[in-house]
Amino acid sequence: MARTAIITLTTDFGLNDHFVGAMKGVILEIAPEAQIIDISHAVQPFDILDGALTVSQAYSYYPSGTIHMVIVDPGVGTTRRPILLTGERHLFVAPDNGVLSLIYAREERLSVRHITAEHYFLKERSGTFHARDIFAPVAANLAKGVTADRFGDEITDYIRFGAPRPKPIDERTLRGVVLKVDRFGNLITNITPQDAPKLFLPQPPAFRIGIGAKGQATRMCTNYAEGAPGEIFGILGSMGFLEISANRGSAFQLLNAGKGSEVNVVMQP
Amino acid sequence: MARTAIITLTTDFGLNDHFVGAMKGVILEIAPEAQIIDISHAVQPFDILDGALTVSQAYSYYPSGTIHMVIVDPGVGTTRRPILLTGERHLFVAPDNGVLSLIYAREERLSVRHITAEHYFLKERSGTFHARDIFAPVAANLAKGVTADRFGDEITDYIRFGAPRPKPIDERTLRGVVLKVDRFGNLITNITPQDAPKLFLPQPPAFRIGIGAKGQATRMCTNYAEGAPGEIFGILGSMGFLEISANRGSAFQLLNAGKGSEVNVVMQP
Amino acid sequence: MARTAIITLTTDFGLNDHFVGAMKGVILEIAPEAQIIDISHAVQPFDILDGALTVSQAYSYYPSGTIHMVIVDPGVGTTRRPILLTGERHLFVAPDNGVLSLIYAREERLSVRHITAEHYFLKERSGTFHARDIFAPVAANLAKGVTADRFGDEITDYIRFGAPRPKPIDERTLRGVVLKVDRFGNLITNITPQDAPKLFLPQPPAFRIGIGAKGQATRMCTNYAEGAPGEIFGILGSMGFLEISANRGSAFQLLNAGKGSEVNVVMQP
Repeated sequence: MARTAIITLTTDFGLNDHFVGAMKGVILEIAPEAQIIDISHAVQPFDILDGALTVSQAYSYYPSGTIHMVIVDPGVGTTRRPILLTGERHLFVAPDNGVLSLIYAREERLSVRHITAEHYFLKERSGTFHARDIFAPVAANLAKGVTADRFGDEITDYIRFGAPRPKPIDERTLRGVVLKVDRFGNLITNITPQDAPKLFLPQPPAFRIGIGAKGQATRMCTNYAEGAPGEIFGILGSMGFLEISANRGSAFQLLNAGKGSEVNVVMQP
Repeated sequence: MARTAIITLTTDFGLNDHFVGAMKGVILEIAPEAQIIDISHAVQPFDILDGALTVSQAYSYYPSGTIHMVIVDPGVGTTRRPILLTGERHLFVAPDNGVLSLIYAREERLSVRHITAEHYFLKERSGTFHARDIFAPVAANLAKGVTADRFGDEITDYIRFGAPRPKPIDERTLRGVVLKVDRFGNLITNITPQDAPKLFLPQPPAFRIGIGAKGQATRMCTNYAEGAPGEIFGILGSMGFLEISANRGSAFQLLNAGKGSEVNVVMQP
Repeated sequence: MARTAIITLTTDFGLNDHFVGAMKGVILEIAPEAQIIDISHAVQPFDILDGALTVSQAYSYYPSGTIHMVIVDPGVGTTRRPILLTGERHLFVAPDNGVLSLIYAREERLSVRHITAEHYFLKERSGTFHARDIFAPVAANLAKGVTADRFGDEITDYIRFGAPRPKPIDERTLRGVVLKVDRFGNLITNITPQDAPKLFLPQPPAFRIGIGAKGQATRMCTNYAEGAPGEIFGILGSMGFLEISANRGSAFQLLNAGKGSEVNVVMQP
C-alpha cells in the first residue's frame, strides 16, 4: 500500500479568513487520509516572485511524491491556465503565471500539463476562488492516485520568468538586489557564492558591501552570533544567498533598506 | 474500520500564545489518531458574528462526521452553556452564545444538546480556558466514537441571532453593510443575488453602489483582473456575497471603508 | 505497533518565510507518518524566556512519547550544544541555551544528552538554520524509534536559568513582574497562589494591585465576564499565574503596561 500522500500549501491567502480552511475541507472530502502541510500562507498578496521564492526554498526537503499547491493567483477567473507540473520527485499544481519559475530552473526533467479535466473540479465554481474550486480537488485526486496524464495535455509554452540576477558593474563591483526581508530582519539578496566566489572564501580579500542609500558591511560572518552589537555584516544564509544581517537585531530596521534595495559588492584592489 | 476522525478549530485565540498548542495536546492525549485542522484562529477577539461567518464559510466542505470546534467565548466561566450541535453531516462543539447561528440557519435537521457530562472534562478546570478544559476533551471523545447523546440532554432554547440583512430603502435602493474585510482588502457585504437579482445579471441595468462616506462603484466584474488600475468595482465573491474590490489593490485602503460601513445599491430608473 | 509519533514545534521563526515549511519537509522525508503539530512559531525573536514559557504551558497535555522541538536559537552555528532531554513522559530537542529551563523545573526525573551523532544530521549543513539541518532530522529519527542514547552522551552542565520570581518588599507587599501579554491583552504576571495565598482566597481581604506607572486593581474575579465595563481586575489565569485583565477589553491597552512592567500586590492591614 502506498503511504499517506502529503499535500503542501503555499499561498498568499493569509490566515485571517476562511480561505485556507475551505480549501483543506475540499481536499479532505476527496482524500481524507491526505496529510496537509502549510508551507506558508503569508506570501505577499499578488506577489508571484515571493511565492516562487518561498516554495523553492522548501519543496525539495519533502518526500518523493509530495504534491505542492502553489497559489498566488491575481488572474483567477481569467483565461490563465491551471497547470500541473511533474518534476523529478514532486508534483505541483498552480496557476500558469510564472509562480513555478524557480522550480522550472531547478528540476532537470519535468513535464507541464494544462489542467482541463473539469470533471475533477467542484461542480459549483466561483470566478474568484479557484484554489478551493479547481486546485484543491485536483491535488486531492492526485493524492488518491489519479495519474497526471488524466488531468490534461502537455504544454511547452507555460509562463516562466528568470529571477533577477546580479550584474557586474565594473571589474570590482557586482550589483544585486534584496529579494526579501525575513522574520528576523535579515536582508536576503540574490547574490550566491557562484556570483562572487572571493567574497565567500574562508579569508576573503578586503571588500565593501553597500546596501541601499547608506548601509554598508565590511565583514563576512559564519553565524549570526559572531556579529558585534549593532554591527551590520554579510553571511551566507541557509537559502544559499548572501544575507545582510545583525546579531540579535534587525538589519532591516537598522538600515532602513528592504525588498528591492540595491546591494553593491565592491572587492578592494 | 472507521477512517480517521477530523477535528477542525475556529477560534479567536491567535497564534502567538500557547492556547492552540495546549488545546491540541488535550485532543491528542485522548484521540491520538485524530486529524486536527485549523480553520482560523484569527477571529476578531470576542467577535461572535465574525466567528460565525468564518466557520459558516468552511465547514460544509469537510467530510461527513467532521467535528468542528468553534470557540469565541467572552462568557467563559459564567453560566453560559457548552453545547453540542448535531447537523446533517457534521458535529459542532461551542459555547451557547450564538456563534453557531449561521449553522442553525443553514442546516435543515439538527439537534442541540447542553453538554453536562463532566466526566469527559479535564479534572482540573480553569475559569478562563474551557476550550482546553471542556471543549477539547468533548471533541476528542466524539472523535473516539462516543455518541452525542452521552454528553447531555437536548435543548431548544439555545441562543441564535440573525445575521444583519440588507433592507430596501426605497424602490430603487437596497442598503446593506460591510460584514468583514478580507486579506486582500475586499469588502465583503451582506448582499446576495437573492437580495438584488438585477445587479448580478450578466448585463445588469445601470446602477450605482455607494460605499461608506465617499466610495462608489458603477460596474460589476466577474473576476478581479477585469478591473482597471485603481478602479473600484462590485463582484460576486466566493462567499456568495457582493464584494467591493480592486484589481491587485485593496478596496479597504482605497475607500477608507471597512467593517460596518454602509453599502447602498441604487438601481437607475 | 507503536501508534503514530507526534512532533510538536515551538519556535521564533514566524509564519511568513519558508523556515517552518522546510523543517517539516525534513521531518516527513525521514518519518513520513509523523504527526507534526505547531505549538507556536510566534515566540518573540531571540527571546529564550518567552520560548520557555510557551512550551512549558503546552507540553504536558500531549501524550506520552511526544517529541517537542523547541527552537529559539540566537547562538545557532556557534559552539552552543544541541541537546536531547528525556523527561518523565516526553522528549525535547533544543539548543542548550536555557530554553528548556522551565521543563527542568517541572520534571522530576530527566536526563539530558549532548547530541553529537552527526550521521543523523543533514549532510549539507548551514551555519544559520540548525532547526532544518540538525534538530528536525534528530526529532524525526526519534519518531522512527531511534533511542535517545544513540544521539550522544549524558551531560549535567546544561544551561538553566530560573524564571523571575516575585519578591516580598515589606510585610504587606509582594513585587512581581509582567511575563507576557497574551492575545487578548491580559497581562500575565509571575505571581502564583503559592506566592500570595490570601489574594486567591474565595473572599480575599482588602488589597490593592499596582501595575506599571499608574494601573491599579482592587478586585479579583473568577471569570472575565465578571468585570464591569472598563474595570481592571485580577484573575487566576489558566497558566496558573495572576493575570491583570479587563472584560472584553485589553488591559494592555487600557494600562499602557506590558512585558517587564512591575506588579505590586499590597494586602491591606
